[in-house]
This record gives sequence, C-alpha cells and structure tokens, in this order.
Amino acid sequence: MSYAHIRARVFDIISKDDGSDRASRTFDLLIMALIVLSIVSIVLESFEALAAKYAATFRAFEVLTVAVFTVEYLARIWTADILYPESAHPRLKYMLSFMALMDLLAILPFYLPFLSAETHHLRVVRLFRLFRLFRVFKLGRYFDALHTILQVIRVSASRLVISMVLCFSVMLFSAIIMYTVENPVQPDQFPNVIASMWWAICALTTVGYGDVYPITATGRFFASIISLVGIGIIAIPTGIITAGFSSVLSSEKRMEEEEKKFCPYCGKKLR
Amino acid sequence: MSYAHIRARVFDIISKDDGSDRASRTFDLLIMALIVLSIVSIVLESFEALAAKYAATFRAFEVLTVAVFTVEYLARIWTADILYPESAHPRLKYMLSFMALMDLLAILPFYLPFLSAETHHLRVVRLFRLFRLFRVFKLGRYFDALHTILQVIRVSASRLVISMVLCFSVMLFSAIIMYTVENPVQPDQFPNVIASMWWAICALTTVGYGDVYPITATGRFFASIISLVGIGIIAIPTGIITAGFSSVLSSEKRMEEEEKKFCPYCGKKLR
Amino acid sequence: MSYAHIRARVFDIISKDDGSDRASRTFDLLIMALIVLSIVSIVLESFEALAAKYAATFRAFEVLTVAVFTVEYLARIWTADILYPESAHPRLKYMLSFMALMDLLAILPFYLPFLSAETHHLRVVRLFRLFRLFRVFKLGRYFDALHTILQVIRVSASRLVISMVLCFSVMLFSAIIMYTVENPVQPDQFPNVIASMWWAICALTTVGYGDVYPITATGRFFASIISLVGIGIIAIPTGIITAGFSSVLSSEKRMEEEEKKFCPYCGKKLR
Amino acid sequence: MSYAHIRARVFDIISKDDGSDRASRTFDLLIMALIVLSIVSIVLESFEALAAKYAATFRAFEVLTVAVFTVEYLARIWTADILYPESAHPRLKYMLSFMALMDLLAILPFYLPFLSAETHHLRVVRLFRLFRLFRVFKLGRYFDALHTILQVIRVSASRLVISMVLCFSVMLFSAIIMYTVENPVQPDQFPNVIASMWWAICALTTVGYGDVYPITATGRFFASIISLVGIGIIAIPTGIITAGFSSVLSSEKRMEEEEKKFCPYCGKKLR
Repeated sequence: MSYAHIRARVFDIISKDDGSDRASRTFDLLIMALIVLSIVSIVLESFEALAAKYAATFRAFEVLTVAVFTVEYLARIWTADILYPESAHPRLKYMLSFMALMDLLAILPFYLPFLSAETHHLRVVRLFRLFRLFRVFKLGRYFDALHTILQVIRVSASRLVISMVLCFSVMLFSAIIMYTVENPVQPDQFPNVIASMWWAICALTTVGYGDVYPITATGRFFASIISLVGIGIIAIPTGIITAGFSSVLSSEKRMEEEEKKFCPYCGKKLR
Repeated sequence: MSYAHIRARVFDIISKDDGSDRASRTFDLLIMALIVLSIVSIVLESFEALAAKYAATFRAFEVLTVAVFTVEYLARIWTADILYPESAHPRLKYMLSFMALMDLLAILPFYLPFLSAETHHLRVVRLFRLFRLFRVFKLGRYFDALHTILQVIRVSASRLVISMVLCFSVMLFSAIIMYTVENPVQPDQFPNVIASMWWAICALTTVGYGDVYPITATGRFFASIISLVGIGIIAIPTGIITAGFSSVLSSEKRMEEEEKKFCPYCGKKLR
Repeated sequence: MSYAHIRARVFDIISKDDGSDRASRTFDLLIMALIVLSIVSIVLESFEALAAKYAATFRAFEVLTVAVFTVEYLARIWTADILYPESAHPRLKYMLSFMALMDLLAILPFYLPFLSAETHHLRVVRLFRLFRLFRVFKLGRYFDALHTILQVIRVSASRLVISMVLCFSVMLFSAIIMYTVENPVQPDQFPNVIASMWWAICALTTVGYGDVYPITATGRFFASIISLVGIGIIAIPTGIITAGFSSVLSSEKRMEEEEKKFCPYCGKKLR
Repeated sequence: MSYAHIRARVFDIISKDDGSDRASRTFDLLIMALIVLSIVSIVLESFEALAAKYAATFRAFEVLTVAVFTVEYLARIWTADILYPESAHPRLKYMLSFMALMDLLAILPFYLPFLSAETHHLRVVRLFRLFRLFRVFKLGRYFDALHTILQVIRVSASRLVISMVLCFSVMLFSAIIMYTVENPVQPDQFPNVIASMWWAICALTTVGYGDVYPITATGRFFASIISLVGIGIIAIPTGIITAGFSSVLSSEKRMEEEEKKFCPYCGKKLR
C-alpha cells in the first residue's frame, strides 16, 4: 500500500463510524472504553488505600491511556488535510478546533511535569491533573442523543449568557451590601467583598450551607429582599430553557404536521 | 359449578372492577384498604413504645396481610391464561410482568427470614422489609387520575434520562474537582471522590445541609461556578417536564378544536 | 323608612362597591383598614415590651375590631335573603358559604375563651388566636387583581392535588427508607417514621436546614437518589403551573386575535 | 462657535452614540470604563490591607470619578431642553427622570459628608456609599442586548408584583404561626413576629441556612406544610416568567410567519 493509501485508511478508521466499517467501529469502542475507564481510575485513585496498593497498575494504565490518546491525536493531525480538503492550513485549522484542543488538554497534564520539573508542588500538579477530565468531552463526538438538549442550549445561549451576567451583577451588588452591613459585626465571616460573594452565591442559588449568614437586623432585612429577588433571578434561566424546549419541540411537531395537511374530501393541500 | 366456571369467576373478581360486579368491587376495596393499612402499620411500628406494647397485634396483622396478598398472587397466576389467552406460557408471562414482580416483592420479605435463618442480622432483615413498600405500586392498578402526569413523564422519558445522565456527569466532574482542591485541607470531609459526591449532590440539588462545604478560596471559587451551573442543570428537567405538560395540554385542546374545523374550499368537516 | 327599606339599604352598603355608592365605598375602606390594622396589631403584640406597655390599647382595639366584624357578620346574615332571593334557606346557605365561615372564624377566638374558661391554658388560647389570621381572607372580596393567578390555580387544581399526593407518597417512602437505614446509627435524629418525615420534607423541598441528615454511606446513597428524584418531583408542580399560565395567557391572546381576522383586501372575515 | 452651537455639540457628545460620531463614542467608552472601574475600586477597597496601603490612590480615583460624573450630570441638565424640546420645564423634567435620579444618587454620597459633618459615624457614611452602586444603572443606557429579558419582565410586571404580594402574605402568615408555636420553647430564636419572618423567608425561598428552625412537633408539622406550599409559591413567579418568555418568543416567531401569509380567497399578501 502506498503512503496515500495508508493515510486514507487511517482517516477512515479514526473518523466517526458510519456502521459499515468494522475496524472503525472497534476503534471507536476502544477510545470510548478508555475514556470511561480513565475517569473510573481517577475516582478509584482517590481512595488512599487503593492508590497505595495498586500504584503501579494505575501508573501503567495512565501511560497506556496517554499513549493511545497521543497516537490518536497525532493521527488526526496527520490526516487533517483529508478532513479539510479546501483549507490552506488544514493541520493548523484542525489543531485550533474545539475538539482538538480538548484532545490536547486531555493528554497535556501527563507531559507537563517533565517540562516544569521545578514546580513539582503537590497542589499545582493536582490541579493540572484535573485537565484529564477534559477527556469526557471526547465522548461528545459519539453521542447524537444529546442533540435536542444541546440544540435548546444553543438556541437559548445568548439569553442564558445575559441572564448569567444579570445574575452576577445581582450577586456582586448583594455581596457589597452585605459586606457593608455585616463586616463591622462579623469581620471573620465578611472580611471583604470577594469573601461575601460566597454568601451571595449560596443565598441566591438557595443552597444555604449555613456557614455564613447575616446576624444583624439590617443584614437580615437586606438578605430577605435579596433572597426574594433570587427566586426571580433563578426563574429567568429556568424560563429561558423551558421556552427553548417548548419552541424546539413545537417546531418539530409543526414540521411533522405541515406534511399531512390535506383536505380529506377535495384532496387539495391545505397551507 | 365446574372447575372452569370457578376459575372464570375468580378471574372476574380479581380483575379490575368495571362498576357492575359487586364482589369485584368489594375485593378491590379490601385490597386497597389492606395496602394503606400495612403502610400505616409500618409507620406505627417505627414508634418503639407502640412496637413493644402491640407486638402481637402488629404480627397478627402482618400475617393476615401477607396471607391475603399470597392468596391474591396465587389466584392471579392461576387465572393468567384467561388474561393472556393467546400466550404459549401465560403463567410465566404474568409472573414476569411488572405488577406481578411488585406483588411478589411485597410478600417476599415475610418468607425470606425462614429461608435464610443464618443471616438473621437485624439490619439485613430491616432492609428486606423495605420491599413491603412495593405494595404501594399495587395501588397504581386502581388510579386513572395519575394518567396525565404519567403521560407527561412517558412522553419526556428519553429526554429526562439524558438530562439525568448529564446531571450525573456534572456531579462526578464537580466531585473530582472538589476532591482535588479540598482533600489536602479537609481530608475528613473529602476523603475520596465517592465521598465528595455527597457534597456535589447537596450543592447541585441546592439542598445544602451544611455538613460538608468548601473552606479554601479555590474550593469556594469552583463551588460558586458549580452552583451557578447547577441552576441551569436543574432548569433542564424542569423545562422538559413543563414543555411536556404544555404539549400534552395543547394536544388535548387541539383535539377538541379539530372537531370544529371545516375545509375552506369544499366546506366539509375536516377529520 | 320602612323595615324592608332599611334592610335593602344595609344590603347595598355591605355589598361590594360598584363605584357609585359613597356609603358603600366608605364601608369597604373601613373594613379593609380594620383587617390590615388587626394583622399589624398581631405583629406588634408579639413584641413583649410593646405588649406589656400598651396592653390596654391592644385590648381596646381588639374589642373594637371584633365588634365591627360581629355587626358586619350579623348584617350579612340578616340580608342573606336579598343575596339569595331564590333559596329556601338563604340564611343557612349564607352561613355555610366559604366567605361566611371565614368571617365567623375571624371573630370566634374572641368569644371562645369565655365559653371554655376551664381550658385557659396559654398554648391552647394562643393556637385559637391564630384563627384571627382568617381575617386576611376577608380581603379576597376586594381584589380582582388576583384573578389571573387564581384562575391558573383553579384550572390546574386537580393536577396540583395529584402531584401533591405523589409528592407525599415519595416523602413517606423516603422517610421509611431513611428510618430503616439511619435509625440504628442515629436513634436521636431518626427515632420513628414520622420524625424522619421532617428530614424527607427538608430534603425534597431542598430547604436543607442541616439539623437532620444521613451519616451512613447507605443513607447518603439513598438520600442522593431521593434528592435527584426530588428535582423531578418539584418540577412537576412548576410545570403544571407554568403550562397553566401559558394556556390562560394564550387563550386570552387568541380571543383578542379572533376578533380582528379579516383579509385587508377582500374584506372577508378569516376564520 | 456660538453658545447655542457649543450646547448642541455637547448634547451630541453625551447623547447615545449612533456609530457615526467619534467624540460621542469615546465619551461613552470613558463613562462605561469609569463605572466599571469604580465598582472594582469598591471591591478592592474592601480588602483592609489594600485600603490602608493605597488610601491616597483610592481617594484620588474617587475624586476623579465624581468630578467626571458631576460634569456629565450638569451637562445633561444644561442640554435638557434639546432632549425635551416641547416641555415647559425641560430641566426639571430631566432631573426627575429615573436615569437622572440614579445619576444624582451616584455622586451624592461624595458631597454628603461635607454637608452633614456631625453624623460622621462610620456606618452611616458606609451605607450612603452604597448609592455609588447605582452607577451600574448608567450602564443600562448602553445595552440593547438586555432587551428581551427586560421586555419579558415588563410584560409580566403586574403579575410578578401580585405574586410577590401573595408570597409576602404567605410569609407573614407563616411567621405568625411559627411565632405562636415556637416562641414558648425557643424564645431566643422566635422572639417576635418580625424575627420569625427571617425563618419564613429562609424556608419559603428554600435557602435554609439552619440557624433558625422549628424543634417542636407542632412547629415541624406547620413548617412541613409551609415548605410544601412554598414549592407552589416559588412555582408561580417561575411560571409567570416562563410563560412571558414563551409569549415574547412566539410573538416574534409569529411576526416572521405573518410575512409569508396570503389570503386564501383573493391570493393577496396579508399584512
């Protein structure tokens, strides 16, 4: 087989399976299994007893996973010009696509400690390892079932972002008010505005852990008003998403109905 | 009366009452009363003072209930071939139906202690007795009123399952993040990922008992983002169910309206 | 003026003001003011310092309020046959109407202590005095603005009741499970099923005070599932009410539009 | 340039930018940057270490901000008769407009300490400084994107207000009940009705900090009922806002569709 043939075959295998190619299906299942297993291994590794006992196994599995994902990442770059035949810089275009960035972030934490050996502090490494979670996004490639939900989110995206901005403004506003009112009485709980943001978020999302709450009458008065406003604030994203679902569902229904609107007696198509 | 006649009569009695048969109605009311009373007895038995004082009464009622339910269960198996006249194995088919399995689970815990006398540990027996709660599902046979709500849930089922999977993914994701961030500071509260799932569920469902919460600045930052995302996550099932209600209600309304629609060309009534 | 004239005039005054009768409007405003003031006085009387200092004033105001409400109640009974001209027993019919029962409950606690002087225990009297809150329902007579909300609730009433029954079943179910699982470990927090209902309600309504929560792994597992189910359970009444609002609003809109559907060119009315 | 010319030019600059005038766009960006920066400075100043170290910088920035806002405020009053050419008292009309009052409140706290030197108590000054937050409303002048959300709120305003009144009534009602029931047992937590409003708000908004909760059986019984009612109460504003979104979105959609509708009799395009 020529170089071009091998490359075309590799592209077929790593592309999404259309049901006919057995090698492609096997490859997809292998990648999905590895993603799920690597998330499971993160969960299991968090049990200290297991992490100590099976340290070598976890390490071996990690090396295997990263090796496969690295090969897959390189293969996708290698075959990028088949994916984007009309692009001038197909490889660069692929490397900057959302999926490719997720793929890179999923393997990067493995290589990073070698690059930055001096910042080997436990917490920094731990936080870097969180990037491994981005492997979940690789699964997105394989699920069409999320379609409706994602479509609703896409349709409502701009409104959701604005409602989140509104939400954030109300939180900042609330945090500043509560800092002003409660700081003189509870300097430990409301030391500054950023810290009292924690209270504002717990109150407005109605979580209410009970670690921070107002104790002055003025503070409780403002907290009450903020909580009531919070009901409305939470109602806004709920309303946006619900209206989005209604709209997506009814447009699907209307499309089905449009096709069968005929007068059953005279046979003319009803508009 | 012949054997076949008796069996047909028994089938009539245990089948759902259609309003005409007095024996059938009496039987239905008896079973419903026993189900409600057995739930009440579980509640009452949980009071130690009552359980000690009326131990014999509770035991007698339990024996009576299980006896009636066992007879009913056997009678339903016995008459299964009248229910499924075309099936090759009507009894097996009935025994594997959802309602029959619930009926079996409702009486099983009574017989189980005899079978497994060696595992007579208090907790195991207690957990087995929970199966008695499945008797509630027997009530489902008698209520048509739940129809609309169940129809909405059935219509939205696939979307609800996907949103629950999404929900679970976000929770697992959040649990891993919080474990990584908070474990070094609060090893007691966040000992492993499974344990920090408890926090994730309390935060994302906005229950927030306040037994576990982040104390580091990084943890609070991530917890804030997770709580905000949580509003959206909770909004999705709410949106699905609401859109389902709107759709079911409007399709009912539309069916009423369809009956008054005429073709504008030939003037005949449209089906 | 004859007896019949006086009675007809009294009926005019105590009936709802239609804008033309000045005495009627004054009477309405007086009653509304008394209702609001008597609620305010309940609030103020709860401050011990105020209750002690102005005991005589509170008592005088209470006597005045009850006197006016008693006279109003008797006048309404007296003129009941003008309200229900076709009824055989107009006074009995009025006395058993919802509004009349509320009116009676609003004045009853004042007379009750005299009737049952021996049960003068503080807590019993206190609970009886709560009936005074029923005076708020008298306000309902004067507000047409609540119309849309009440109509939505009325339209959705049967569904809301069923969803509340469903909610109650899930709570009872959850309470029995948690009692079974947590009672051996926390006998103080989960002493019996009724007590663990308190936990179930706090969890499913997502209030989560944090006074009672599971500490065993099994308990937390079940609590997690129950909380997730809780999101769906809460979504059901929200969905019902939202669909009700959409339906009421869109039927109002449709009625407006029906009236202006004409082809602007040929002038024919469009169906 | 004549006086009238200068004034017209100033009006052009401080009016909202329509994209063509470079000076106007620069002015808008400057004002927006100052508003955002002054919010940031409130946040930063709340950190005691920063407030002490950079006291002079914060003071200088404060003076600069207020100076610019004062000049802008005076310029807007000065050019008010160009904005309201038909008004008899254009300046008074402008000064009493919502935006002008917000602008005044945004600068007032700076001048107030000079006026009332004797009330120089820390807390009073602090509360006055909260008015600076009203500068956020100046941002509203520049965002068209909030349009849909604000339109939904405007459309639903009257219903939202009534549902908030309903909410407040239920809260007051709940507070009085819980005060009556819990005060004899927990006089510290439920000292009077106003204090037990704090509990009612935490329970009905489902925040549930866990600082105040019923401990008597009667109290828990009422609290359970109130929490269940609370689900419905919270569902009402959510339903109102969702129905508002559905209605605004579908009316937008309908307007698009109207453009493709033709009369079925004469075939002409319907407006």
